[in-house]
Amino acid sequence: MKVDGVAWRSIAEDGPRAVRIVDQTRLPFAFATRRLDGCDEVAHAIRSMQVRGAPLIGVAAAYGLALAMQRDSGDAALADAHALLLATRPTAVNLRWALARMRAALQPLPAAGRAAAAWLEAGRIAEEDVAINRAIGRHGAGLIAEAHARSGRPVRVLTHCNAGWIATVDFGTALSAVYQAHDAGIPVQVWVDETRPRNQGLLTAWELAAHGVPHTLITDNAGGHLMQRGEVDLVIVGADRVSRAGDVCNKIGTYLKALAAHDNGVPFYAAVPSPTIDWELADALREIPIEERAADEVRLISGRDDGGRPAQVALVDASTAVANPAFDVTPARLLTGIVTERGVARPSDLAALFAPARAAA
Amino acid sequence: MKVDGVAWRSIAEDGPRAVRIVDQTRLPFAFATRRLDGCDEVAHAIRSMQVRGAPLIGVAAAYGLALAMQRDSGDAALADAHALLLATRPTAVNLRWALARMRAALQPLPAAGRAAAAWLEAGRIAEEDVAINRAIGRHGAGLIAEAHARSGRPVRVLTHCNAGWIATVDFGTALSAVYQAHDAGIPVQVWVDETRPRNQGLLTAWELAAHGVPHTLITDNAGGHLMQRGEVDLVIVGADRVSRAGDVCNKIGTYLKALAAHDNGVPFYAAVPSPTIDWELADALREIPIEERAADEVRLISGRDDGGRPAQVALVDASTAVANPAFDVTPARLLTGIVTERGVARPSDLAALFAPARAAA
Repeated sequence: MKVDGVAWRSIAEDGPRAVRIVDQTRLPFAFATRRLDGCDEVAHAIRSMQVRGAPLIGVAAAYGLALAMQRDSGDAALADAHALLLATRPTAVNLRWALARMRAALQPLPAAGRAAAAWLEAGRIAEEDVAINRAIGRHGAGLIAEAHARSGRPVRVLTHCNAGWIATVDFGTALSAVYQAHDAGIPVQVWVDETRPRNQGLLTAWELAAHGVPHTLITDNAGGHLMQRGEVDLVIVGADRVSRAGDVCNKIGTYLKALAAHDNGVPFYAAVPSPTIDWELADALREIPIEERAADEVRLISGRDDGGRPAQVALVDASTAVANPAFDVTPARLLTGIVTERGVARPSDLAALFAPARAAA
Repeated sequence: MKVDGVAWRSIAEDGPRAVRIVDQTRLPFAFATRRLDGCDEVAHAIRSMQVRGAPLIGVAAAYGLALAMQRDSGDAALADAHALLLATRPTAVNLRWALARMRAALQPLPAAGRAAAAWLEAGRIAEEDVAINRAIGRHGAGLIAEAHARSGRPVRVLTHCNAGWIATVDFGTALSAVYQAHDAGIPVQVWVDETRPRNQGLLTAWELAAHGVPHTLITDNAGGHLMQRGEVDLVIVGADRVSRAGDVCNKIGTYLKALAAHDNGVPFYAAVPSPTIDWELADALREIPIEERAADEVRLISGRDDGGRPAQVALVDASTAVANPAFDVTPARLLTGIVTERGVARPSDLAALFAPARAAA
């Protein structure tokens, strides 16, 4: 996607021995990139959320492993890099998926061949991510087009967190649908949930503004009211881990919006690349590890000061106890459909949609 | 309630011709009071949320009318002051109720008798508010005591916004129940919703800390997840306007928590002084005017800077469109009960609970 007219990806190869990322901890207040040339740096970038978003985390981890192989491609180094990267964040399954795929590709090879193979495999994962998200956007845009055909009016889409191009390599998942609908001439307006504590809604607003999509920022509290008033036509969000049964783990607060959508007959979709599906999961509510992040994410809030410089204020001091679970699980019963690169499925049909590929795999 | 060991009310008479308020726009970062000696100042204090909370707004408006009568007690001045104060905020019905009561008391009197009568009547409304909230707290504490008796463990209460002593003259509504349970030796822990955009949760945390009640600050997004995990025993919130059928208009986001409570079998209560009930309301969702507040409440956020001084940062600039509805309506079907000064009623029994008084009135 473009920033000030220049095409960017959230992660890109920077020569044969490094990657360059958009540093998301500085967005939307500053657009800055950062060169990562080692596995440790990639692990730090994931942990600190310089790169974030389930699909992007997976791709970044693949490159992290590839960078590790360039320094030492022995079995111990492979195992160590895998373990280091896997431990960076617990919830998004894309991380585990990408690392498992890399290890499966590299383990059988002689050590001497691993560095080159790893770099190529990470690149393939990145390119597949782009292709998957383009396809998700096409299917998702179809849903927006149908809503427009029914009403004849601009389609009012609500989204939570950031499932945009910077949460993936390019295009995004939920926002890929919005971009493709907009580009196809379908009038679309987006309600952007602020998404406390880290305010990823500001990233979404920044992306939408750059692409020229009309949007309105709201607090996380407002969506239910808007749905009661008939001001939301559909909800589409991303996902961090989805069970075979179609339960969707996503940014904290998604569940509340799904309840409100269900209560008001508003269609609710999750945009889900297949690497986000955890086929091994039996009970999403019990089994998905929900990351508990630092209390300071709630206590402190970042913005710009009067002079436009990045600044931070404290809402409470360290004496106030804080809980900060980062994700929740939306049960499949609350979802209208899951938008994948293969099309839109009811949650109960998700496994069938991917059955041929999984049988072949 | 006490602040640093000194008993305070959120509004109190300051001599015979002024009131003194706690300036809530400076809390929790500074505790400061402000003397108001005219109707215009009271109107400004309500509009700017120096005084806030449905019960307190009603009492402040009553004093505002009384202050107006001290300058000019003619019919035109009475009508003007009534209109000015009524227009300050649209949603909480306590404002209309208190002003109607004042006008009904004053209109029949000769102008010469109105100033003294108005001051006495405003004082009666304030004292009744205290008595009502003490009774609400007693009934609400009973619910917490029952939950403790069932589980034998500390009772984990979730609340939204601030329905504490500073939202009333004293004691609070929802928090009155918490204080009385705590004071009776029942172990209670409070999940405090941040309550964006104005972060009234910080007021709640400040109140609870001052009273020594254990509490944990959470984002507005987190409550549903906590309920899914069985970490909330009951929810209790305040109200700005309640219909005869038991539909509860309260701070934006309340509806989302009620949906989550209902979905997880968590009892959900609203603490409602009778002046917050709008008996004339047929359809709460359609008829209650929902205040749309300034976009800057969402764009800007206040806290303390590194040096501990009050400071503000901008999350987005003025080019980002913002919607800021301040209240939503929770349908009666989602409520377990309504806690009033007369006891706890199912929403469908609310009218019957007040039938004798209303017949007599």
